[in-house]
Amino acid sequence: MAERANPLAARNDALILGIDPGLRVTGYGLIAQSGNAIEAIDYGCFAINPRLPLSERLASLFGALQDVIARHAPSEVAIEQPFVAANAHSALAIGEARAVAVLAAGLAGLPVQQYSPAEVKRAVTGYGRGPKEQVQEMVRLQLGLRDLPEPFDAADALAVALCHLSRKRSRALIERSVAQ
Amino acid sequence: MAERANPLAARNDALILGIDPGLRVTGYGLIAQSGNAIEAIDYGCFAINPRLPLSERLASLFGALQDVIARHAPSEVAIEQPFVAANAHSALAIGEARAVAVLAAGLAGLPVQQYSPAEVKRAVTGYGRGPKEQVQEMVRLQLGLRDLPEPFDAADALAVALCHLSRKRSRALIERSVAQ
Repeated sequence: MAERANPLAARNDALILGIDPGLRVTGYGLIAQSGNAIEAIDYGCFAINPRLPLSERLASLFGALQDVIARHAPSEVAIEQPFVAANAHSALAIGEARAVAVLAAGLAGLPVQQYSPAEVKRAVTGYGRGPKEQVQEMVRLQLGLRDLPEPFDAADALAVALCHLSRKRSRALIERSVAQ
Repeated sequence: MAERANPLAARNDALILGIDPGLRVTGYGLIAQSGNAIEAIDYGCFAINPRLPLSERLASLFGALQDVIARHAPSEVAIEQPFVAANAHSALAIGEARAVAVLAAGLAGLPVQQYSPAEVKRAVTGYGRGPKEQVQEMVRLQLGLRDLPEPFDAADALAVALCHLSRKRSRALIERSVAQ
C-alpha cells in the first residue's frame, strides 16, 4: 500500500475519491470530511485521445487513476454508475471505462460504492433530474468553492463523492438511533 | 517487459493468447505458430467467485490474466468480443470482464484484436452458427489434441486464437499477392 501522500489525510475522517468514468473524459474529485467540515482537496479530469486503440485508451485511463490514488491515498471510492444506455453498444463502452475505475480502486484495496446519476443528483440538488449547471452550482455551494468546478465531468465526480458522504452520514444516523 | 518464460517462444513465429472473457468464467488458450505448424501450448479457465464484490472480482480476473501473460509472454492477444446482449444490463457486465482483458494486454504492450462470436465460429467451423460442441471438436482437430479441450470457455478461447491466426494468414496472403 502507498503511504498517505496527503498531509491532511491523518486528520480526516474520510477522504473520498469520486469518479465519473467515460471513455473520452473521466472526471475525478476528492473531498475530505473531518467532523462536520467538508472540503474539496482536488478535482479535474482526464481526456483520452479517442483515436488511440481501445487497449491504449484503457491503459491510459488506468494509469491516470492509479496516479490519483497513489497521490492522495483516499479512504474510499465512489463511482458514478452509468445509466443503462438505450442501446447495448453504448452500454458496453461506458462499462469499459467504469470497469477500469472499479479495478483501479479494487487493486488499491479500497472499498467501492456505485451510485446512479439520479441518486447523485438527488443527493446534491434534492431532486433526481435537472441540468448539469445546477449540479455544478450545488457542488460549489456545498464545498464552499469560490468558482464553479470545471469541467462538468469534474463537478460530477465531486457530486458523486458528496453523494457517498451523505449516504454514509444517513447510515451512521440510522445505526446510532437503532443502537439507542 | 517480462522475459519470455516459454522456452518454445524463440522458435515460434507467433504465440497467440486467446481470451473468452466473462465475469463468472474466463477461458484462455495459447497457440504457437511456427511456419505451417500450430500447437496448443496451454489452455484453461479462471472461475471467479460471484459472491465477491465487483471490485474484487475484477481485480482477481486482472491478476490471473497478468499471470498468464507473464508466464507465457505471448506476442499478441485475441479477445472474443461479447455479442451485443439483448439488454443493456448484461452488455455492461460482459463489457467489464472484456475491459479488464483488454487492459491487461494493453499494459503488457501487446497488440489486441477482437472478434465476434460469429467470426470465431466461421473461422473454425466454416459456419457462423452451430453448437459449442462443434467448435470444441474443430478446435481439437485443428490443434491435433487427443482429447476435447475442456471446459467450453477454454475451447472458445483456443478458437479465438485460431480465428486470429487464420485472419493473419489471409492478410499475409493478400499482401503477398498484391506485392507480386
